Amino acid sequence: MKQLTVVKIGGNVIDDAQVLQTFLVRFAAIPGAKVLVHGGGKLATELACKLDVPQTMVDGRRITNAETLDIAVMVYAGLVNKRIVSALQGLGCNAIGLSGADGNIMKSTRRVKGAVDYGLVGDIRKGGVETGLMDTLLMNGYTPVLCPITNSVADGLLNTNADTIASSVAAAMSELYKVTLTYCFEKSGVLLDAADETSVIDVIDAEILGQLKLEGIVSGGMLPKLEQAFSARESGVTEVRICHADEIAGTGGTRFELS
Amino acid sequence: MKQLTVVKIGGNVIDDAQVLQTFLVRFAAIPGAKVLVHGGGKLATELACKLDVPQTMVDGRRITNAETLDIAVMVYAGLVNKRIVSALQGLGCNAIGLSGADGNIMKSTRRVKGAVDYGLVGDIRKGGVETGLMDTLLMNGYTPVLCPITNSVADGLLNTNADTIASSVAAAMSELYKVTLTYCFEKSGVLLDAADETSVIDVIDAEILGQLKLEGIVSGGMLPKLEQAFSARESGVTEVRICHADEIAGTGGTRFELS
Repeated sequence: MKQLTVVKIGGNVIDDAQVLQTFLVRFAAIPGAKVLVHGGGKLATELACKLDVPQTMVDGRRITNAETLDIAVMVYAGLVNKRIVSALQGLGCNAIGLSGADGNIMKSTRRVKGAVDYGLVGDIRKGGVETGLMDTLLMNGYTPVLCPITNSVADGLLNTNADTIASSVAAAMSELYKVTLTYCFEKSGVLLDAADETSVIDVIDAEILGQLKLEGIVSGGMLPKLEQAFSARESGVTEVRICHADEIAGTGGTRFELS
Repeated sequence: MKQLTVVKIGGNVIDDAQVLQTFLVRFAAIPGAKVLVHGGGKLATELACKLDVPQTMVDGRRITNAETLDIAVMVYAGLVNKRIVSALQGLGCNAIGLSGADGNIMKSTRRVKGAVDYGLVGDIRKGGVETGLMDTLLMNGYTPVLCPITNSVADGLLNTNADTIASSVAAAMSELYKVTLTYCFEKSGVLLDAADETSVIDVIDAEILGQLKLEGIVSGGMLPKLEQAFSARESGVTEVRICHADEIAGTGGTRFELS
């Protein structure tokens, strides 16, 4: 079976130009088919501040009204995505930046209002990843760089969580490839003690995940990431890891196993 | 030989949401392989104004410093490109939005400083259009939507004139396709008298183009467009036309002929 590496980078890697460049050099060096999924970083919040558009975050997720969606599209699909693509081109990696609207590669539906109305926020539909286009690009030597904007025919562009995109894409591509999914961030892995970088949990399985949730060891923003990581593993992704951006080519961090 | 329609829309079509939607309905209905090239419109100027980044225009072209480039990338590659792509998806046209950095589809070099230093502005290199990727996308049923941002490995992202992109892409694709190039804007065609919409020049050839230049009939911003249009015709594009956006499926406007 063909091999595919899916890597997700979050805000802390994107916000510092030097850290981002160091990461991209390592990413470009990964052999074979690969996909990069990026979050937004602080740039969207900074731009919203300059434009006097108030931002509301609930559990680390942005409430998205029409003005905030425009900012997200400009920053995620525009500035961040094209800076990354241009930098990868400079490193000899033939990147192609895409939002979910492009080739309808990530089809979503607007999130139903629950206790919180997140506004113009979407979740990728079941079967919503256009694996055919993704495969065509990969087989032709291109590296898709996906930004956290998806598309719904009914509601248009929607702000979408990048962790969920990485998980959904990795899971969908598992039909065609043996997929490795790596979430890169600024810590060494999932920590038992948030203040202690040496307290990395090596392996998380269903039982440990349940305990972590029950005991409230993992803080608010981290829990959805763990659930996305575990869900990808359950959906057929061969290897799932959460690690420091420096460990992208290594084996460190937290691995997810079914049992 | 395969047929390809390349259409360029400028600022005046983009600035009004209703005018844009009407145009996109007509564009989506064009049968067969097609490419859309769009300019930026007033949104970049508006955003620059809100962000207190002063803008300087020379002969209708924007002087681009680093801050202005970021704005251009956000607006052209982000907001305008993704709005168009999402709208086309809603109309059943499988659009895929690309900057020149994506798949290195439009490789440029930074413009050498002349009498005017345009800053971070690029011109597409000879042989800089990646016709292979364009053909792969077209043959798989996708409609590339190109924004006026190109990429240079030496200088990164560069602001690029959309008329020139349309001309370069149409000329390059003429190796593989019988290409029709249509520049859409808010007037009925090239006018002998700018104040009289009925004074459309039906056909422009080398001789008439020379006369128009010599007599100064055509105003500053229009002259480069005429030269791009004529240059595309010289480079093997089968049919080149400048017309009103409403005439996209018609035959009105100004045609360019070699003699």
